[in-house]
Amino acid sequence: MTTQQLHEQILQKKSFLCVGLDPDLTKIPQHLLETEDPIFEFNKAIIDATHDLTVGYKPNTAFFEAYGIKGWMSLQKTINYINENYPDIFTIADAKRGDIGNTSSMYAKAFFEDLNFDSVTVAPYMGKDSVEPFLAFENKHTIMLALTSNEGAFDFQTLNVDGKELYKQVLETSKTWKNSENLMYVVGATKAEYFTEIRKIVPNSFLLVPGIGAQGGSLSEVCKYGMNDKVGLLVNSARAIIYASKGTDFAEKAREEALKVQKEMESIISLKFQV
Amino acid sequence: MTTQQLHEQILQKKSFLCVGLDPDLTKIPQHLLETEDPIFEFNKAIIDATHDLTVGYKPNTAFFEAYGIKGWMSLQKTINYINENYPDIFTIADAKRGDIGNTSSMYAKAFFEDLNFDSVTVAPYMGKDSVEPFLAFENKHTIMLALTSNEGAFDFQTLNVDGKELYKQVLETSKTWKNSENLMYVVGATKAEYFTEIRKIVPNSFLLVPGIGAQGGSLSEVCKYGMNDKVGLLVNSARAIIYASKGTDFAEKAREEALKVQKEMESIISLKFQV
Repeated sequence: MTTQQLHEQILQKKSFLCVGLDPDLTKIPQHLLETEDPIFEFNKAIIDATHDLTVGYKPNTAFFEAYGIKGWMSLQKTINYINENYPDIFTIADAKRGDIGNTSSMYAKAFFEDLNFDSVTVAPYMGKDSVEPFLAFENKHTIMLALTSNEGAFDFQTLNVDGKELYKQVLETSKTWKNSENLMYVVGATKAEYFTEIRKIVPNSFLLVPGIGAQGGSLSEVCKYGMNDKVGLLVNSARAIIYASKGTDFAEKAREEALKVQKEMESIISLKFQV
Repeated sequence: MTTQQLHEQILQKKSFLCVGLDPDLTKIPQHLLETEDPIFEFNKAIIDATHDLTVGYKPNTAFFEAYGIKGWMSLQKTINYINENYPDIFTIADAKRGDIGNTSSMYAKAFFEDLNFDSVTVAPYMGKDSVEPFLAFENKHTIMLALTSNEGAFDFQTLNVDGKELYKQVLETSKTWKNSENLMYVVGATKAEYFTEIRKIVPNSFLLVPGIGAQGGSLSEVCKYGMNDKVGLLVNSARAIIYASKGTDFAEKAREEALKVQKEMESIISLKFQV
């Protein structure tokens, strides 16, 4: 998928919502545990109930790997289900990978070829040759951690590096890498005031914004400072939507929560883009 | 496994070699491709041929994930094979994971519980709450990236942060985390001169040292500057050992290469520890 296609889908659906698929067997509705593949059944129900309100799904690989081979099978079934039934949806493997060059190439194969995701999240610590193997794939997108939404973000990301914070250096350096037009960035919603500075460095890039909902970020603040003239935002919500209910009505309640967010996004998009 | 047990094994085997298991279907002997699980058969042969010369095996998860579910099954068979047949060997899941707290907990479950590795590598960029969930596991070890062996290491790791390089800040900060005694660190062998400074910050920690062999680091230099009074080093070699031959003699040739490294290690240990 191209960023232009993603942009068009955002205007069409009046949504830049991405739903995080973080399936945890201790949190999903207990009646699903009787099925053969509870994780897939959970994801499938959430996807079917929300696909018209969201432009992206972001399975986090940790929540599949924790269940070993069965979990990896659930991940494969989930991405295949999205690709077969809702091919316009932008898919993100939230994997936060990164290794030396020949190893990153194998990760890129895993997520772009074997699983056929549109994008994958990566960590910047190992630098250029750990990220460029991902960038080499055409019409695939590499979403690099810049400023995350957790408490530990302040341990290193905001340290002062030669007069500027590390995450700004990460953003600036990454723009010099080969095929850097395939980069997007993770920027946490809990720090809306940072978006102004970030947009000075990467005015045109899509930003994947976690931290709305359970982690406490405000959508209107993020849009105020982070939106560009192509929207340029994918706002992720996981727990607040997928765990809205633990009952048999979980998918219906997930839709209600997703609809609330989509309606807020619709009013922002209508105001700013007059569509 | 405790670090004391690892130390005892090192003195007993007169080796601190770790063999990296990075199975690539385009590089392994082609006659193995006729077997049902070429990756596992390759690993098994390498392990059987080298287990008395090495104290650790380090499968890199990228080389399994690239082959999807089949690859993840090969990873599970590989770790089970080591744990069942050579339970004294220290096992490292080279996964370079790291995410917000509740997600890192799922990764920790994946590698420490589901797969039963002794240790896992993690990335530091997301800070304290992305690493502490791993540290909570008793007799399990978390090996954090400090200074890596690749070219991109100089993009961010060596940047000057308030008067000191970022990787030093990473080392120092990590010592304040809960259960930090369960930390080890990745320090690349291509930068032996850095070990003196690193040992001032983490004198007692085990260092996992990649970059010997194919990446060009020198074993004697690493030992000169990086060894502590408990050895404190695990030196990894992958390609130089596992791809020593592409013929049917690959395991035998792998043993020969491993033996060369072990002999060099034996002379260093004998000299320094008089065992």
